[in-house]
Amino acid sequence: MIKVNENFLKLQAGYLFPEIGRRVRAFKQANSAAKIISMGIGDVTQPLVPAVIEAMHRAVGEMAVQATFKGYDDSGVGYEFLRKAITENDYETRGVSIDIDEIFVSDGAKSDIGNIQEIFGLDNIVAVADPVYPVYIDTNVMAGRTGPANNSGQYEKIVYMPCTEAGGFVPQPPDEPVDIVYLCFPNNPTGAVATKQSLADWIDYAQKNKAVIFFDAAYEEYISDPEIPHSIYEVDGAKEVAIEFRSFSKTAGFTGVRCAFAVVPKQLKAYTHDGRALDVNPIWRRRQCTKFNGVSYITQVGAAAVYSPHGKSQIRKVIDIYMGNAALICRSLSKLGYQVYGGVNAPYIWLKTPNGMGSWEFFDLLLQKAHVVSTPGAGFGPSGEGYLRLTAFATPENVKEALDRFAKLKW
Amino acid sequence: MIKVNENFLKLQAGYLFPEIGRRVRAFKQANSAAKIISMGIGDVTQPLVPAVIEAMHRAVGEMAVQATFKGYDDSGVGYEFLRKAITENDYETRGVSIDIDEIFVSDGAKSDIGNIQEIFGLDNIVAVADPVYPVYIDTNVMAGRTGPANNSGQYEKIVYMPCTEAGGFVPQPPDEPVDIVYLCFPNNPTGAVATKQSLADWIDYAQKNKAVIFFDAAYEEYISDPEIPHSIYEVDGAKEVAIEFRSFSKTAGFTGVRCAFAVVPKQLKAYTHDGRALDVNPIWRRRQCTKFNGVSYITQVGAAAVYSPHGKSQIRKVIDIYMGNAALICRSLSKLGYQVYGGVNAPYIWLKTPNGMGSWEFFDLLLQKAHVVSTPGAGFGPSGEGYLRLTAFATPENVKEALDRFAKLKW
Repeated sequence: MIKVNENFLKLQAGYLFPEIGRRVRAFKQANSAAKIISMGIGDVTQPLVPAVIEAMHRAVGEMAVQATFKGYDDSGVGYEFLRKAITENDYETRGVSIDIDEIFVSDGAKSDIGNIQEIFGLDNIVAVADPVYPVYIDTNVMAGRTGPANNSGQYEKIVYMPCTEAGGFVPQPPDEPVDIVYLCFPNNPTGAVATKQSLADWIDYAQKNKAVIFFDAAYEEYISDPEIPHSIYEVDGAKEVAIEFRSFSKTAGFTGVRCAFAVVPKQLKAYTHDGRALDVNPIWRRRQCTKFNGVSYITQVGAAAVYSPHGKSQIRKVIDIYMGNAALICRSLSKLGYQVYGGVNAPYIWLKTPNGMGSWEFFDLLLQKAHVVSTPGAGFGPSGEGYLRLTAFATPENVKEALDRFAKLKW
Repeated sequence: MIKVNENFLKLQAGYLFPEIGRRVRAFKQANSAAKIISMGIGDVTQPLVPAVIEAMHRAVGEMAVQATFKGYDDSGVGYEFLRKAITENDYETRGVSIDIDEIFVSDGAKSDIGNIQEIFGLDNIVAVADPVYPVYIDTNVMAGRTGPANNSGQYEKIVYMPCTEAGGFVPQPPDEPVDIVYLCFPNNPTGAVATKQSLADWIDYAQKNKAVIFFDAAYEEYISDPEIPHSIYEVDGAKEVAIEFRSFSKTAGFTGVRCAFAVVPKQLKAYTHDGRALDVNPIWRRRQCTKFNGVSYITQVGAAAVYSPHGKSQIRKVIDIYMGNAALICRSLSKLGYQVYGGVNAPYIWLKTPNGMGSWEFFDLLLQKAHVVSTPGAGFGPSGEGYLRLTAFATPENVKEALDRFAKLKW
């Protein structure tokens, strides 16, 4: 008899974005004339830049001719031209030496972050921030690394690290030893960033506890402060303890194109129960080559064009549009008396709800009165209660209109 | 302390294709002038057809303009235009009614076949054919569904179903009950096909044992015999017991583009340990929406063009080239006194080695004397010993030249 993986039954039914979708659809049905502006889901709106478009047209053309046609990417982990561009542009320029064999190109950071836990034992203790991107937790629930959820939606065995206003929304290393730590900077959902010193504290913690850090840097391109590290490897010792995840989704508008990469340093070790130290890099390679078959050649050519001189300047202009939105949102909402966080080194604004309103209550108010879709902070964990996430990815026109509506909002 | 998933340590070191690659590289180093012809790895060589190329150029163009730019595929499981084209062309035309909500578009059949086991419990007993596509087994080893391997490379707890010359290389349902059965027709590596009757026997077995069949139909487009089913759903009762995997890789030359789909019927159930029956379809949806983020819009537009009138006739010509190769290989090698199987409804030819030579021995002889790369049958399992897999994916010129060399081969 075929048995289901019963760990899936522990998953909370109301996944955040479906629930938002349900409420938005209900509102639309009742108010078909309303012009809804989405500042909710973190999806880009600017088209791909010309350098990427030209490269992808060229790659499509190559696929039409036998002499230049490409079948399987034999390495299974990305063409060398792309992995080389990554190591040179994302790392060497910041004084970090990464070998191309440490780069694993994939179809998305969500896939990588979801899959990476597979190569580690089920008895590892996982720590996540609260609030947190739900994928970190849900993939561990599915794998069986947790117990059931309690009433507040938190799972047994997971160590939650509350991120509060007082702590600048940056989690502190826990007092107890854990084995796997998920960190995300610039942070989704709070927009917080980590200084070199706070990452150094985490690396120190990981070294002492032989823990591994999964470092989600999908939003690094949005950092404007020159003192803030873009990669955890800018901090000494990180290569022994951290796997870094990057994505072209938010950097280059690839949410609909699908390309990302993971960095698995050769120094990184994991252990058997009898204490043998094993290299993690070849284990991840084996996983990827067995359960994955590489990324479209056309996509990889497009991703490499992001690193061309034209690509870089074009991408910069797009990021500037989004960060112009973020700055305007922060400025306008502050003027209106709201308490806002993030939005300076990240495309996310973490808005404190007025008058101690609940996240969902303020979400509904914004939807009903201003026709603006946001994301309730409580959906990212109990410590997100009393906050709302706004994204900077709408068009500038829509952002301005949304802010005008905020100005008229009564609560 | 971070613990590795020790199941990975059970995997056999010498994965088939890396070992072939190693031997080919060594030969090339010693014989740099030799012109090697590959009939080994199953990768296509014909370029993408014009209908697909045109569609992909158009989709790239759409991504350049804000009004037509596409971000995330909200469904996470494929655009409706593609899922609709699939249900109409792959299923309705064969009298099979599949709902678009039963179609899950992905980046590859290897990914789907590797990932599908995740939604089922670790205590399910798995049955595979011998010889077999190694991914079926390795992904179960990684997940922890097996014991260690024995000297012949077979894993404890897996039920192996020997496929022999006498049985037409089609496995018979085992006497014992198993929970998961992997079937692949047209078969990789043997090129064998299953009749409606043999699939009906399997469906009967699955219904009696509440087992689920993972049906890998990646090569269905190569079927020439009108009596042979392309989909397991052409046989009554299959929707209650089978998940089908399809791919654009071998159908439309998408090995370097990456697009495939899985069909998870709404009737399919899996069970909890206390005997509750659960729908599998929403569980797979939850898995995909949590650990995967959809396929490139450009790729999906290209895949949909495969179903256009032009696309269909162009694809047919490409398949005809490969099947012309297959027919020539079978005819020529038979004339030379070889015993050959497959090659009629599949792009694979299963060649019996002459004089009872071992698979690797004949592989080396072919490489050294004819400079032809094949795949040793023993690499697919003990019952593949004494066979070699040849693929029909080379260019017709190269196939002819390889056959000329076969004609001169002395053993």
